[in-house]
Amino acid sequence: MPLIDPDRLLGDLRHLRSIGAQGKGVVRPAFSAKDMEARRWLKGRYEQAGLDASIDGVGNVLGQSKQKGRALLLGSHSDTQPTGGWLDGALGVVYALEVARTLAEDPATRGLPVDIVSFQDEESRFVGCLGSRSLIGGLTPEMEQGAADKDGVRMEDALRAAGLSGVPRHKVSRERYAGFVEAHIEQGPTLEDTGNRIGVVTGIVGLRGIRFIFRGQQNHAGTTMMKTRRDASTMLYELAHRINQEFPKVAGERSVWTMGRLKLEPNATSIVPGYADLDLQFRDASDAPLDAFEKVIDRLVAEMNARGGVRIEAVRARAPIPPTKMDEGLRAHIEKAAERHAPGKWLRMPSGAFHDAGIISASLPAAMLFIPSIGGISHDFAEDSRDEDIALGCQVLADAVASALQAAR
Amino acid sequence: MPLIDPDRLLGDLRHLRSIGAQGKGVVRPAFSAKDMEARRWLKGRYEQAGLDASIDGVGNVLGQSKQKGRALLLGSHSDTQPTGGWLDGALGVVYALEVARTLAEDPATRGLPVDIVSFQDEESRFVGCLGSRSLIGGLTPEMEQGAADKDGVRMEDALRAAGLSGVPRHKVSRERYAGFVEAHIEQGPTLEDTGNRIGVVTGIVGLRGIRFIFRGQQNHAGTTMMKTRRDASTMLYELAHRINQEFPKVAGERSVWTMGRLKLEPNATSIVPGYADLDLQFRDASDAPLDAFEKVIDRLVAEMNARGGVRIEAVRARAPIPPTKMDEGLRAHIEKAAERHAPGKWLRMPSGAFHDAGIISASLPAAMLFIPSIGGISHDFAEDSRDEDIALGCQVLADAVASALQAAR
Repeated sequence: MPLIDPDRLLGDLRHLRSIGAQGKGVVRPAFSAKDMEARRWLKGRYEQAGLDASIDGVGNVLGQSKQKGRALLLGSHSDTQPTGGWLDGALGVVYALEVARTLAEDPATRGLPVDIVSFQDEESRFVGCLGSRSLIGGLTPEMEQGAADKDGVRMEDALRAAGLSGVPRHKVSRERYAGFVEAHIEQGPTLEDTGNRIGVVTGIVGLRGIRFIFRGQQNHAGTTMMKTRRDASTMLYELAHRINQEFPKVAGERSVWTMGRLKLEPNATSIVPGYADLDLQFRDASDAPLDAFEKVIDRLVAEMNARGGVRIEAVRARAPIPPTKMDEGLRAHIEKAAERHAPGKWLRMPSGAFHDAGIISASLPAAMLFIPSIGGISHDFAEDSRDEDIALGCQVLADAVASALQAAR
Repeated sequence: MPLIDPDRLLGDLRHLRSIGAQGKGVVRPAFSAKDMEARRWLKGRYEQAGLDASIDGVGNVLGQSKQKGRALLLGSHSDTQPTGGWLDGALGVVYALEVARTLAEDPATRGLPVDIVSFQDEESRFVGCLGSRSLIGGLTPEMEQGAADKDGVRMEDALRAAGLSGVPRHKVSRERYAGFVEAHIEQGPTLEDTGNRIGVVTGIVGLRGIRFIFRGQQNHAGTTMMKTRRDASTMLYELAHRINQEFPKVAGERSVWTMGRLKLEPNATSIVPGYADLDLQFRDASDAPLDAFEKVIDRLVAEMNARGGVRIEAVRARAPIPPTKMDEGLRAHIEKAAERHAPGKWLRMPSGAFHDAGIISASLPAAMLFIPSIGGISHDFAEDSRDEDIALGCQVLADAVASALQAAR
């Protein structure tokens, strides 16, 4: 059984953390100077591990094994949120490196081809999951065209500044790969709350979004009588509250929905707002509750629009994410490894957050494993996991990968 | 009967409009260079009208008649909203000037003492109704201390920049004045909608404010299950919608309430908000509905807090404005003049907006008259009134003032 080196693993994770470190957190958004510095460092480490390494035209760092035969692709992303935690995608990137090294060092597994990757821009500075989309050929010219970050920087200019204009882009080879495995922190409290140490992901929840736009009439809050008002905020409050009342009646057990972003105009205490918008996001591991939610929305909006006054428009988000199932064959290898190293302490669970594995699963069998997040905290400087959980997760991944590759021969 | 000069009136209004003009609107916030330029110009016009004129230590421009006996004080404010209309308070300021001139020119009325004023900062750059509060001795050190505008400019520094540090502040003399009369545009559609040309104000509605603060727990919108969430936005939507459901049951005929300003933190589509706040403002011409609204609020907040989870705090605004009645004696003179010049085309009405007259009424008998706003539009570059309505309102004011002063002799 190939044994990972926990000190080498933690050492590399901590070195990666130092690139863009701010306090306990990391600031390494896609294509920033620190992000590209991290990618060049990863390329060097991939080479030291005996891999053919390169940074492709969207910033993916790919390390390819010299071994022949059906390979597994392992990895995650090393870009971070604007104020990110140190683990997040970095965990899965360094796990992949450590597993490649570990298998190459063990005479029993050194012939097994393991390729590794750090995807670019999973965190949506420009295009969410840019790197994994590009790798499977799913990055359309429409997605790239006009892509800009929230400060108005264009992706085209960020690529040029990073020296990536015109650099070739890798495409996944379905002939080479038996599948893709991504490790990640859970980013939620389920493993910690249930006393488990490994999560075997059954699927990634689907996500749909709607922006409600409310068009009324701006007016003076003292001189405009209630019966003549067309108050955009009143309709927003009613629709949001009724969604929160109606959704539970049709929700699945793990359905979630959130209305966490809105805008009133002019957003002043003494002015009746003439315009408002509100984002609704809803997720479930299967399509049925998501379809049911859309029916509720259609009914509520139609009913409220029938009154006249404020006009409500519901704009569907351009790129809904369908629920995806993780590959059962790969999952079985992860479950077997989890039971060996953490008997009775692992859990099958859906992923409520989205991941590159959700993109890759459209082209390759894909699987994921989670390790516990302390307090369930993520996308925050305070994000952390225990050293022993970090080491355990990597050992489970190494075993699962060796076992899956041996089975694929 | 003293006759006003409509051309002189409109000429002065248009000159005042030119100071700080932007397109069809005016930008002349309190203590800005344009505001002070306007005040110095007004002081010059007051002097040309034969008045003793001065700018006091808070920026009020006061013109005092040399005539003896019980006087009336007339005026309004010449500061504007950040993007204001050309009439608003400027109308009442120039009306006062024109009435003082008209009465001084007519042998039958030239002995009547008319003082005139342009108050400072009615529009709340630093302290709402600063000038009228100061004039009646109602400006406390607590109000001034730390007063700053929305860009962080301190009032103390604005006063110094305007050359007003240490300049004496006028105080109203109850012995000198029989009362105060303010003319203003209606800022609402009632006169226009009912085909009337003069509004005689019966009272100014009271205004109370509450800021609701919602404290929950910020979380990931994908990984945090509904039953463990403490979503500040969910409680905000519920409370706001229930207020809109419950208030009509206890409201007066002309009660209004508005929830036009709020904040979610962090206000992001994929994050469960951990904090929110919401402003509720409610107005009525009498206290009873306002008291009833507060009882509803207390009940809803107590009921929602009893559930645990998100904690709601209701913070009362520091300076509620009580409803005020206009003086019946002064009103009678305005009504008589309105019936003479616009027979059957005038209306008794409350003011839904607040005015300096509401402050002054605590010390002196006070009254107001309105002229129609085209489309009810105010606090906007598009604000306007018809020339003939502007002239008519001033003539009604001149008659009413002459009649009230003659009666007071």
